[in-house]
Amino acid sequence: MVEVEVAPPRAHEVRVKIVCTSLCHTDLTFWRMKDFPAMYPSILGHEAVGVVESVGDHVEEVAPGDTVVPVFLPQCGGCADCLSPRSNICSALSYRPGLMPRDGTTRFSLAATGEPVHGFLSVSSFAEYTVVDVAHVVRLGGSALPPEKACLLSCGVSTGVGAAWKVAALEPGSTVAVFGMGTVGLAVAQGSKMRGAKRIIGVDLNPDKFEIGKRLGVTDFINPNDTGEKTVSQVIKEMTGGGVDYSFECIGSTSVMAEAFESSRTGWGKTIILGTDTAAAPVSISSSAIKRGRSVTGALLGGIKPKDDIPVLAQKCLDKELELDEFVTHRMGFDDINRAFDLLAQGKCLRCIIWMDGAEQKKAGA
Amino acid sequence: MVEVEVAPPRAHEVRVKIVCTSLCHTDLTFWRMKDFPAMYPSILGHEAVGVVESVGDHVEEVAPGDTVVPVFLPQCGGCADCLSPRSNICSALSYRPGLMPRDGTTRFSLAATGEPVHGFLSVSSFAEYTVVDVAHVVRLGGSALPPEKACLLSCGVSTGVGAAWKVAALEPGSTVAVFGMGTVGLAVAQGSKMRGAKRIIGVDLNPDKFEIGKRLGVTDFINPNDTGEKTVSQVIKEMTGGGVDYSFECIGSTSVMAEAFESSRTGWGKTIILGTDTAAAPVSISSSAIKRGRSVTGALLGGIKPKDDIPVLAQKCLDKELELDEFVTHRMGFDDINRAFDLLAQGKCLRCIIWMDGAEQKKAGA
Ligand SMILES: [Zn+2]
Ligand SMILES: [Zn+2]
Ligand SMILES: [Zn+2]
Ligand SMILES: [Zn+2]
Repeated sequence: MVEVEVAPPRAHEVRVKIVCTSLCHTDLTFWRMKDFPAMYPSILGHEAVGVVESVGDHVEEVAPGDTVVPVFLPQCGGCADCLSPRSNICSALSYRPGLMPRDGTTRFSLAATGEPVHGFLSVSSFAEYTVVDVAHVVRLGGSALPPEKACLLSCGVSTGVGAAWKVAALEPGSTVAVFGMGTVGLAVAQGSKMRGAKRIIGVDLNPDKFEIGKRLGVTDFINPNDTGEKTVSQVIKEMTGGGVDYSFECIGSTSVMAEAFESSRTGWGKTIILGTDTAAAPVSISSSAIKRGRSVTGALLGGIKPKDDIPVLAQKCLDKELELDEFVTHRMGFDDINRAFDLLAQGKCLRCIIWMDGAEQKKAGA
Repeated sequence: MVEVEVAPPRAHEVRVKIVCTSLCHTDLTFWRMKDFPAMYPSILGHEAVGVVESVGDHVEEVAPGDTVVPVFLPQCGGCADCLSPRSNICSALSYRPGLMPRDGTTRFSLAATGEPVHGFLSVSSFAEYTVVDVAHVVRLGGSALPPEKACLLSCGVSTGVGAAWKVAALEPGSTVAVFGMGTVGLAVAQGSKMRGAKRIIGVDLNPDKFEIGKRLGVTDFINPNDTGEKTVSQVIKEMTGGGVDYSFECIGSTSVMAEAFESSRTGWGKTIILGTDTAAAPVSISSSAIKRGRSVTGALLGGIKPKDDIPVLAQKCLDKELELDEFVTHRMGFDDINRAFDLLAQGKCLRCIIWMDGAEQKKAGA
């Protein structure tokens, strides 16, 4: 914990007081790459909710006092991608690792020395205040959604639910396989259940995941350690008479991606890649299998457009159509953040909600 | 040329007198694999049109005298795949290399010795008569489509036009790249033009292909030998401001498949694999690129359902919406079939139409 100066927002920027934040696997992945060139020191964190403290020039979309969800994926609203219903990859703002997207500078510096500090994924929420480009904030309007739930919609849950909703556009009665039952995978299960999937097969090495999975819609569980001579895809093909309609990879392993593809049905089976392979290794796919009507696609943030779709998900939470209580497994104050890294690294939590203000934390936990 | 006995059709089978047939790259590929285990001797050929000579038990769909197009892909009409609009991969009849799909026997034998002769792709049209399962014939009804055009709809042209129509479901104004300008690639171009593509980039090592390509809708031509330091995908990205909406691989090379994928646009770019890699090598795809909204899929016969969609394409030919004249580059009698293999191997033809009856050939050529 060090004191950091957070400069005022420049044009098209918003300074946000973080209310609570949570830890996502991507934070862990980058934290482990501590010697990443030219990236550290850095303020990690990209799943959060906060209140606008001040805005820079040309910001009309939000005003001080607004509750906002900062999001790693921008939505400028004006580029070909933002204007098309087919894409959620804004092509106007390019990602500059650790820096503000428009001018390539940072708003953070060490209070003691003035040394610049990088941000992370355009959000940098492991700080009391952060500065975010206006393209990266979603206004939640007058919604009475509790902060913890708004926070979850900032990345992991939206990724999973969005993938079932936007990328698969899953039909009622579909069969689904979910590889990796962390927050993203469990949110895929919940999104699939919301859309009427008749069978949701969860795959995870940790048998404890089945209990929570069941509560979120998982109907069958496969532990890859328990399939004997058979591969997971062979077991899935037997269970479903040839493979699932939709197969989701939520781990970020190219060998699991290949197995997810194998588990998908000839004719129309679709494999959806949500995990990030940090080695950027390629996925290998049989060209003859793909010619028999299968497809492979992938998405960031589950294919949702942040400003359009996060408010829709927030409303579904208020309507109890989307239940997020199961995802919050731990709560702690900002001082305890290192414990949150440990819990996630050990696979002992789904989401640790880190409250900036201890009093608020007590209210939420009560 | 040897004398072959063609046994009468058994239940669910149709004996067809071939009117004309043409040579497709798949024939050439298999002909080159002459030592393929347990496959030879074999009657190749799978693009044809003919007239029903006799039918076996339980055949009600066609009757002697009907003009039919035999097709390598079955459509039983009753399985989950045939009943779904999403699949054209009939799951009721499985492919048995060189043999009839229902009982795994052959109807061909050498007249001299009685030795059994294999078929090919459930069609075996390089013979005066063949026997085909009823799931593999398309009745053309009263259509007055000339036999040469009906023949073309049996495989290559339907694959290309179908891919633009059914797999891409290409929107007007789309940009397209076509890798490989043989019959399939040129048919993709024509199908894309029919659906209103605004730019169709053809890629081929043979510069002669550009002239015919232009007549079929190709707007730009790239010869991979002429791109200097740049890769083809770099050139395509520059030409289109980031990549094409749809990229079609019509060669069957995994390195070209990877290049086709690279040429597709972030956000929604779709790569469609139509070529067959004979080594069954896997395609390598960047998992981070696919997560930025791209997808890869593939199809047999361009995703069309033979019995439903070939009659639609036949009508489009009659209406001059689909123009096939350019595809017929050579005509010959059955005796000259070895010349057709040479022409295709040398890339000197699109389709050689092989007429079983020389008198008919003269009429068609007139
Ligand atoms: Zn995340
Ligand atoms: Zn944009
Ligand atoms: Zn063919
Ligand atoms: Zn079928």
